[in-house]
Order: sequence, then C-alpha cells, then structure tokens
Amino acid sequence: MTLPDTIVAISTPAGVGGIAVVRLSGPDALSIASRHLTLNSQLLTLNSRHATYCRFDDIDDVIAIYYPKGYTGEPTVELSCHGSLYIQQAMLEALVASGARLAEAGEFTMRAFRNGRLNLSQAEAVADLIDAATPAQHRLAVSQLRGGYAQKLKELRQQLLDLTSLLELELDFSQEDVEFADRTQLKELLSTLGSQLSSLISSFTMGNALKRGIPVAIIGKPNAGKSSLLNALLGDERAIVSDIPGTTRDTVEESITIGSLTFRFIDTAGLRHSTDTVETLGIERSLKAVAEAQIVLLVHDATTPWQEPDLDLSGKNVILVLNKTDLPHNSQFSILISQFSISAKTGAGIDALKQAMLAAVEPQAAQDVLLSNARHHAALKQVQQAVTHAAEGLDAGLPADLLAVDLRDALYHLGSITGEVVSNDILDNIFSRFCIGK
Amino acid sequence: MTLPDTIVAISTPAGVGGIAVVRLSGPDALSIASRHLTLNSQLLTLNSRHATYCRFDDIDDVIAIYYPKGYTGEPTVELSCHGSLYIQQAMLEALVASGARLAEAGEFTMRAFRNGRLNLSQAEAVADLIDAATPAQHRLAVSQLRGGYAQKLKELRQQLLDLTSLLELELDFSQEDVEFADRTQLKELLSTLGSQLSSLISSFTMGNALKRGIPVAIIGKPNAGKSSLLNALLGDERAIVSDIPGTTRDTVEESITIGSLTFRFIDTAGLRHSTDTVETLGIERSLKAVAEAQIVLLVHDATTPWQEPDLDLSGKNVILVLNKTDLPHNSQFSILISQFSISAKTGAGIDALKQAMLAAVEPQAAQDVLLSNARHHAALKQVQQAVTHAAEGLDAGLPADLLAVDLRDALYHLGSITGEVVSNDILDNIFSRFCIGK
Repeated sequence: MTLPDTIVAISTPAGVGGIAVVRLSGPDALSIASRHLTLNSQLLTLNSRHATYCRFDDIDDVIAIYYPKGYTGEPTVELSCHGSLYIQQAMLEALVASGARLAEAGEFTMRAFRNGRLNLSQAEAVADLIDAATPAQHRLAVSQLRGGYAQKLKELRQQLLDLTSLLELELDFSQEDVEFADRTQLKELLSTLGSQLSSLISSFTMGNALKRGIPVAIIGKPNAGKSSLLNALLGDERAIVSDIPGTTRDTVEESITIGSLTFRFIDTAGLRHSTDTVETLGIERSLKAVAEAQIVLLVHDATTPWQEPDLDLSGKNVILVLNKTDLPHNSQFSILISQFSISAKTGAGIDALKQAMLAAVEPQAAQDVLLSNARHHAALKQVQQAVTHAAEGLDAGLPADLLAVDLRDALYHLGSITGEVVSNDILDNIFSRFCIGK
Repeated sequence: MTLPDTIVAISTPAGVGGIAVVRLSGPDALSIASRHLTLNSQLLTLNSRHATYCRFDDIDDVIAIYYPKGYTGEPTVELSCHGSLYIQQAMLEALVASGARLAEAGEFTMRAFRNGRLNLSQAEAVADLIDAATPAQHRLAVSQLRGGYAQKLKELRQQLLDLTSLLELELDFSQEDVEFADRTQLKELLSTLGSQLSSLISSFTMGNALKRGIPVAIIGKPNAGKSSLLNALLGDERAIVSDIPGTTRDTVEESITIGSLTFRFIDTAGLRHSTDTVETLGIERSLKAVAEAQIVLLVHDATTPWQEPDLDLSGKNVILVLNKTDLPHNSQFSILISQFSISAKTGAGIDALKQAMLAAVEPQAAQDVLLSNARHHAALKQVQQAVTHAAEGLDAGLPADLLAVDLRDALYHLGSITGEVVSNDILDNIFSRFCIGK
C-alpha cells in the first residue's frame, strides 16, 4: 500500500443550495486548504475544531473547520461555502491545483475503514444510512453502524477459532494419534453454530424486505377490485417522504409506508392488467408474485360467491380482503364481513387492513439482529456450508487436518464480513457503490 | 413587527448526499437544539463556534456548531448530519416539535437584512451568488455582495440629499424669496447625476447579458451552414460546467462558455429550421434575433457570390463568418479568407471565431460597475425620470417646493435599491425567489 494522498470532494448533495461543504482528507489537508484561506488579506491559521469565517481565494467567503483526526481518522478540513455550482466547482479546481486529488466514490469511508475507525460492516452501513428513506431502513442501518451483528459474528468466530486451534494442535502431534479436541464437544459446538447461522441467515428475508420494502402480492379474480384496492392503499400515503424535494416518486412507486414499515407491491402492474390477458398468464404472474411475497392480500368480490383460489398459499401470510362491501353482499360472508371487509371505492376498512398488514410482519421486523446486506448473506451461507461440511466430516470420522480445512474456510468467510480478511477487489466493489464525498 | 421566532431548514441542496446541514436561527436556536444533543447519553453544552461531535436524539451522530451571532445576526446552530432523506426529515420534525418553525424561502437572508448584516442589494446578490453557474455570473454576484454599485448609489444619493436639503431650506424662508441653492450649480449637479444614471442604466444590457448569457444571433442564407456552425461552436463546450451533477443540459441549452463569458444563441431553433419555412418567416425570425442580440454572426457560404443581407445591421456587433472554406471558394473572398474563414465541417477557424466573439464584448463585460438586477434597473429608471423632470422644472423656473417633490421621488427610488426605504411586499417578493434554507 502506498502512503495516502490528500483527497477532496463535495460532500453535500449534488446541485444548488444555500450551503455546500467541500471536504479535504489526508496528510496535507491543512496545508493545502491553508494556502487558499485569508482573513483581511492575511493568511490565517485554523485552530482545531474551531469554525473560522474567512475568504477562500477570491471565490467565496467560507466557514473553515480543521479536524486533526476527522471522520477518516486523518487530518480533515471542511469548508462550508455558498452552494452555487460555480463556487463548488471553482473551489474543487483550486484545491486540486494545490495538490489534492478528487476523491473516488466512498473513499472517505474506505479510509475510515483502513484507519480502523469502522469495521467493514459498519462502513457498509454508512452507505445504507445515507440511502435510508424510511424509519425501518434507517433503524437497520443505524443498528449495523453501531455494531449490529458484528458482536454476534465475533462470538461465532471466537468459538470457531478455539475449535480450529485445538484441531491444528493435533496436527503438530499427528504421529502420536492424540485428540486435544473432544469430538463430542466439537460436534455440539458445530451444531450450535449451525443453528445460530441458520437463524441469522433466515433473518435476511425480513432484513432485506425492510431495506427494499416488504413485498406484498395482491391477488384475486378479475374484477375483484385489485387495482382499486391498490389505489386505495396508495391513496394519501404516496407522498409520505416527499416533504423533502428529491424523493422522486419513481423510487417509491407502488409503495406505502405504514407505521415505520414500507410495503412494496410486487408486479402489480401485471396483476392489474390480468383481465386483459389470457387466464393462464394471469395465474402465472400471480404465482410469481405469491412466491416473492411476505404478505398476500387475497381480494374477493363480496357480491359473488366464494371460490377457493387456484394457488398454493400454504406457509404464506394471507389476508383475506372482502371488497365491494358497500354493495349488497353474498350472505355466506355474514360472519366474516365485520372483520375483513373493505370498500376500495368508499375507503371503508382500508385503515384496518393496513393495521392487519403491519401486525402480520411487525414482530419479525422488531427483531434485534436482522441481516440486511446481500454480501453478508452470501458470506454467511458460505460459512454455513463449511460448518455443515465440517460436521459431516466429523460424523464420518475424518482426520483433524481435513476438518481444519473446512473450519478455516468458515473463519475466512466470517472474517470477510467485518473486514478482518478482505481482498482489494471486494473493497473496491463495496465502496464504488457509495456516493462521491462520503 | 413581532419578535422573531426561531426558524429551521435544511440549508444544503435537496437530495441525498454524504452530509446535510440543518440550520436553526433565532433567539431559541441554542435551547431548542440542545434539547436533542447528547454525548454518552448526557446532555451537553455547545461552546461558541466549536465543532462538537454528538448524538441527535436516536436519529444520527452529528457535528453541532453554535454561533452566538450567525449569518442572520441571530443565535444560530448548524447541525451536520448524514445526508439521508430520512435523517434530514426526522431532524427537521424533531426540531419543529421542540418549537422551531420551518423557514420560508430566503428567510435566513431576510433576517440578515433586517438585522443590518446586509443591505438589500447585497441580500439579493446572495441569491444570484447561489444561482451562479459561470465565472461571469459569479463575478457579478460577488461584486454586488461586496458592495458593488451600492457605493456609487450612496454617492448619488448624498448629492441628491444635499440639493434637496438646500431647496427645502428655501421653503422655510419662502416669504423672503431667497435662493440658498445656486440654480446654476444645481443644474450642473442634475446633469452630472443624469449622465451617471444613464451610464449605470445602460450597463444593465451587459450586466443582464452576463447573468443570462450574452445573446448571439446566427443569421445567413439557407444552406450557408448556420446550424453546422452552431454545432461546431457548441461542440466540446456544452459540458463545461457538467463536472458537477445537477447542471442539467436544459439550462445551458444552446450556450457556450468562452473564457469567463457565456454566450447564448437566440431562437436558433427557428433559424436552424428556416430552410423548411417560407422565406418571409425566416426573415422575420432573423430580425427578431438580431434585435435581441449583442453579437450577430453573419454566415456566408464562401462557395457562392456575396450578397448584402436584407437586414439592417447598423449599430450591431457583426462578425462575418465565411463558411465552407474547405471547399474551393469564390475568388471575391480572397482577401477576407485568411481572417474570417471557417469550416464548420472540419472545425478550422472555430477557435479564432470564439476569440473574436470574446473580443467583441470583453471590454464592456470587464467594467467595474455593471447593473444586473432587473429590480434595480427599474428603480434607477424611475430615479432618472424624476431627475430629468427636476432638470426640466429648473429650466422652466419652477419654485423650490415643486423641484423638491421630484428630488424626493428620486431619493425614494434610490433608497429602495439598497433597502433604506422598502415595503414588505417588495421584501416578500424578493426573498420568495430564494431557495429554502438560505
């Protein structure tokens, strides 16, 4: 690794605003910034963490703050300027001319990781934190940033490390045929590890759902009122985060936020138009939507007789929705009508339906430890595979050196999550998804 | 006027980024912010101008800075948080729940004006500064922010005030028929004033051109190569400010920046398609473009004989452009060809043409004092009218009280520029054009 240079970027959102912040980080941050800063035409010295009003070249009046150890763990200077495109660009150019280099995406956070200020899983959480638009996404990211399952992973890793060490000790004495690692105890440990891994891995479904929105399928016969139900659900809720400009409708398309959770409707366009397509295509789409969904809203037109749906809904969170209850309904629904009925047309029952959707997933969503990062999920599955392999080897009476290979493999993948072991390719891949300036 | 309350807004550009800044201003800024800030779960005290790392509720880790007298002249707290939509929104909501009010557009700058930190013309320059995307726009705004013609206006105003006082003194002695104000001297002063006003008012054409781009008309016969010339000019230059995302192409449509100046092509779409329309319509459009333009590029196909254009170009900055000089040209252009020839096709001569465009307007653009604000332009025209009226009255031997009315009128309009006299309606109108958070 070469010595770090000094990087610079605009850290505030792209565009025009009252204030923009230009951030410098690296060994020469202070000296590069200082070349441009004057007060009454005199060069000035920035005191640590003191907000100093001064002039940046002839470009703008700025507030400059110097941190001997900033977010990156390096000397950092932050310059708050007026947020015009010209000023942002001109200051960047001036700082680059003085020896700073334009930062790459995520490079500030990568430095924070390299300097031990964050582990890799925390660094990844920073990107999630910045992308969070709903309370649930935010909570997930904050939990991961403040440690999250890193502690849990550390415990798992320690247990594995202990076992592996004992096994490898046997290798040193391989001529003597001793067993330092108690095979029964080892088997128990692997089994405990296996179930902890399973539970963490399976939390990914919910973690990912919280991050992307909990997938909901709306299914039902043509004319049951699926699309009017969707419209009624979307109704007033679409603009929930739109007080801040920049929350484009595209990103929350077909989503609603109830309480702190976001629900995302899957392929509802397809379902919506199922009346226009041949019945088989409609069923195929419904099947796909149901497979992905965590909640299935089964819509039935209460003015028509009940028919079992053609789909296998076993194991799914199904909420029956009797629609069109503003019209005279079929008598067979008398018992159900008070509990599950809505009118997409009048809006009656929509709030109760939302509460039912919330109740269906809230307990899982409130879990302390939720896996939400696809890279971690993939790594944990590798760990699980190696642990399973080791357990099978143990049952088959394989020698210590072969068992140790599997356990080393498990350790490697566990370590890749928090960054104890990680290749530059993986790092580049992770940080390239960040925005510039973070 | 009621006592000011405490306002809050996101001051950084709208959207997602590494950092966002939430700004509070008003008498309760410190106490409202402090309710939310903790370090190791203890409420903390912010020291003046010290960047303090702390936690904002359970929402985010922030850097908080307290200014006893900030940009607005009021107690101000700036909170740098992670730039997610959720965090920005949640912090705003929390601060509003504690008693802050969401700031209206430009309200921070309006307070800076009300508290005497800026005069009105400087406050307006803040909006121009933030909107500036080119060096020339930036220079105009900075000049206005640092005083600009406020000093010149102040001098004009002082002269007027002296004259008016003398005239009004005569009113007190009206029975005695004395003249404190020497009529010859008064006439000279009004004449000097008038010419200073004229020069300032006429600088508006260039000031406005610098702000919006210097208008350029490309005219010439069908097939002279007008649109290929435009394309050759636009060529590489279109992306000049696009290093920063957010500079959308729409706003720089049909503009190029040469040196520090931006040139804007007028109605070139119309001109471009003039070959498709009847000739009369083409001429009408050319006439309109020429009337608006500060520079006229008269394109002629050098392979065809010269013809005088049908348009009156007197008093315009006309640059003759001989196009298609990569082909054998008409011999009558032999003398001109080295100086004014280009080939839109090969790009030859395009750089020289750009330098010629620059040379045509640079001297005017480099003037120290340029009027660029339409409101100031209108006010100065009112001043000019009143001064002219007074001068005519003086010639006609009108009594002092009538002259004084005109001079008071001139004083009023001069004062409205820097805000010595200004109505709330005008203020509202000015500040409503600002972005929120500034």
